[in-house]
Amino acid sequence: MKILVINAGSSSIKYQLMDLADAHRYAVLASGLVEKIGEATGRVTHTIFTDGQEQRFVEENPLKNHHEGMSRVVALLTDPQRGVIRDAAEIEGVGHRVLSCGEVYSDTVRITPKVKATIREFFPLGPLHNPPNLMGIEVAEEFFPRAPQVAVFDTAFHQTMPPKAFLYAVPYEWYTRHRLRRYGFHGTSHKFITQATAEFIGKPLAKTNLISIHLGNGCSMAAVRHGKCVDTSMGVTPLEGLIMGTRSGDMDPAALEYIMGLTGMDIHQMVNALNKQSGLKGICGVNDMREVVEKAAGGDAQAETALQMFCYRIQKYIGAYLAVVPHVDAIVFTAGIGQNSAPVRERICTGLGHLGIRLDLAKNAARANGPRAIHQAGAPLQILVLPTNEELQIALETKQNITGA
Amino acid sequence: MKILVINAGSSSIKYQLMDLADAHRYAVLASGLVEKIGEATGRVTHTIFTDGQEQRFVEENPLKNHHEGMSRVVALLTDPQRGVIRDAAEIEGVGHRVLSCGEVYSDTVRITPKVKATIREFFPLGPLHNPPNLMGIEVAEEFFPRAPQVAVFDTAFHQTMPPKAFLYAVPYEWYTRHRLRRYGFHGTSHKFITQATAEFIGKPLAKTNLISIHLGNGCSMAAVRHGKCVDTSMGVTPLEGLIMGTRSGDMDPAALEYIMGLTGMDIHQMVNALNKQSGLKGICGVNDMREVVEKAAGGDAQAETALQMFCYRIQKYIGAYLAVVPHVDAIVFTAGIGQNSAPVRERICTGLGHLGIRLDLAKNAARANGPRAIHQAGAPLQILVLPTNEELQIALETKQNITGA
Repeated sequence: MKILVINAGSSSIKYQLMDLADAHRYAVLASGLVEKIGEATGRVTHTIFTDGQEQRFVEENPLKNHHEGMSRVVALLTDPQRGVIRDAAEIEGVGHRVLSCGEVYSDTVRITPKVKATIREFFPLGPLHNPPNLMGIEVAEEFFPRAPQVAVFDTAFHQTMPPKAFLYAVPYEWYTRHRLRRYGFHGTSHKFITQATAEFIGKPLAKTNLISIHLGNGCSMAAVRHGKCVDTSMGVTPLEGLIMGTRSGDMDPAALEYIMGLTGMDIHQMVNALNKQSGLKGICGVNDMREVVEKAAGGDAQAETALQMFCYRIQKYIGAYLAVVPHVDAIVFTAGIGQNSAPVRERICTGLGHLGIRLDLAKNAARANGPRAIHQAGAPLQILVLPTNEELQIALETKQNITGA
Repeated sequence: MKILVINAGSSSIKYQLMDLADAHRYAVLASGLVEKIGEATGRVTHTIFTDGQEQRFVEENPLKNHHEGMSRVVALLTDPQRGVIRDAAEIEGVGHRVLSCGEVYSDTVRITPKVKATIREFFPLGPLHNPPNLMGIEVAEEFFPRAPQVAVFDTAFHQTMPPKAFLYAVPYEWYTRHRLRRYGFHGTSHKFITQATAEFIGKPLAKTNLISIHLGNGCSMAAVRHGKCVDTSMGVTPLEGLIMGTRSGDMDPAALEYIMGLTGMDIHQMVNALNKQSGLKGICGVNDMREVVEKAAGGDAQAETALQMFCYRIQKYIGAYLAVVPHVDAIVFTAGIGQNSAPVRERICTGLGHLGIRLDLAKNAARANGPRAIHQAGAPLQILVLPTNEELQIALETKQNITGA
């Protein structure tokens, strides 16, 4: 079944065309990125995969809007040379990544006018993502009028959290009237990892307990009990929780007033600084973890501090989630940093032996791409590295929504 | 040695006169509270303890300022009927609770002009406490000119935290230039509890690891390794961390921008709401834990939710601190709620058996005032209830500062 996965941003469209049967039998036919929509020169990077060969094409042309961007995607996908299908009608379903649906949907849904209205209703909770997500849907409806359109929400997986985990201790009407609560994000990734973990350790999903540690551009963790999310580190926005490349994660809420008073920043500048000038970048000037690790290894004290803070925060979350989820089977590293940075994984696991977390240093350091276990033989807790695949998860859920299987 | 302990607030002076040899041989001679300084009618509640008898006197008179308030304290302490000493000169030392000294002092200090200048320097970090604390010092210097004056800082105990625990992941110059970092509070209580724990479990302080859980009007936790604080839940202000009577504790920093946008509040109103209208009160309308527990027992769903949230947050902190402090000897409950609320302690410990936390329900429920253990025999971790005594700690440190012993 050919499924197109779309992740539309404010000036971009990420896409991937997959032909899939199930989580293990699928092929990526093409993937790409439309960038700089609305700017002087737009760019489309289009990659096709045929017979084990990868070919990349780059186009630079002004792209007025998402409609023009999507028209290039369709043209490229169906191009005799650069394409992988003959006709847009071959696409049997379109799966859209949508940031937030608040508490309205706890699962993937077929897009209807009502769903679109809900996505619009949640613009205030996802001001940077929900509007372009909706635009991506509307453009896709034009170009693929007969393919079912499906929305996969980044918050859906976390909807199983109990109130004690999702409520903030603030005036209750901020929740009932203003919808303020912990929603969590990266849900599609944490869900994928949850299923992948159950499969990897050979347990039924409903009996699998894990701590999913997604360390990428954004970083978040999820506590999963019996296959369901019971807590997560991101909050009403993706700022809360772990330290990230440029995001602060947790901090004293009163610190905002203090710093605003000293610097003259307004609340928007302040939160912008916490999102864009903080995290690893704020501490050591660099937001790319590879560079931070290199600098720390080279003796840069600020990079070393940033790295220690990053890992220490994760250790505390591991402890917190081990407390509220008894009998955790595995802690699982995923996403760019989680899959690729052996030094970061090592620092996180070091000193947690008393919790049953015992890293096998050689297994951890070995270069590998696939799913793998990196704990010592006989350790009470498994430590896994599992590659996440949000596009595959979206495609699978889209297929399931369409076919019912 | 007769030590007067003073805690001066913006319109109040709390005092306690002690005669003490050491932590176990001391007597409270008198204690009291001057309130409503600067208001139409001030009030002094003065209690004396003689021959095992307690006598309470209440005065109501306008008190223009802290000078007038302190003059009543001196008059009462030396009054032939209501007093306990003949002359103010009998007081051999005055110990002052002072909120914050930033990173300048990590221990108790004799008050000098330089110390007073430092307390003034930290007004921005303790805007509600440092100014009246300094006023209390200046008034005490007038009335007890020959007694050494000593400052005991509420942040001092936490100064042993490592940078990975005290830094926020924000632009580094917010720390170097604006002094933004985690300072922690309730340090005098956590220090007292640390020493009391070592003594109770019969271990040298330098080998004692514990999690100190101070649950009173304000609530905070400290992770203590080898007798020294390595982490704490309060931050640059006492708002961060646990859920409290009216304080939110941890929340997504970006939530402030979101709620301010929807309500029109400015940052001061917002942080005020997080300090005064949040916590237990925000969730269920009531900030007194006894009432919350009663309401929850009576079937009030909001009170039940508030209670669950309160305890869940503490469970997560216990887990976090167990992760970063290996081989914890004991978790210790103290302060009003910690010492007196068996239901709260039970809820916190329930479900943490896999961490070695095994409450003896009967011991927990038994009414008692003194230090006691409430874990099951043979449990890997001790669970203690130890009464805190900040006044005693301040008096002891004042004596030590003066006598060097």
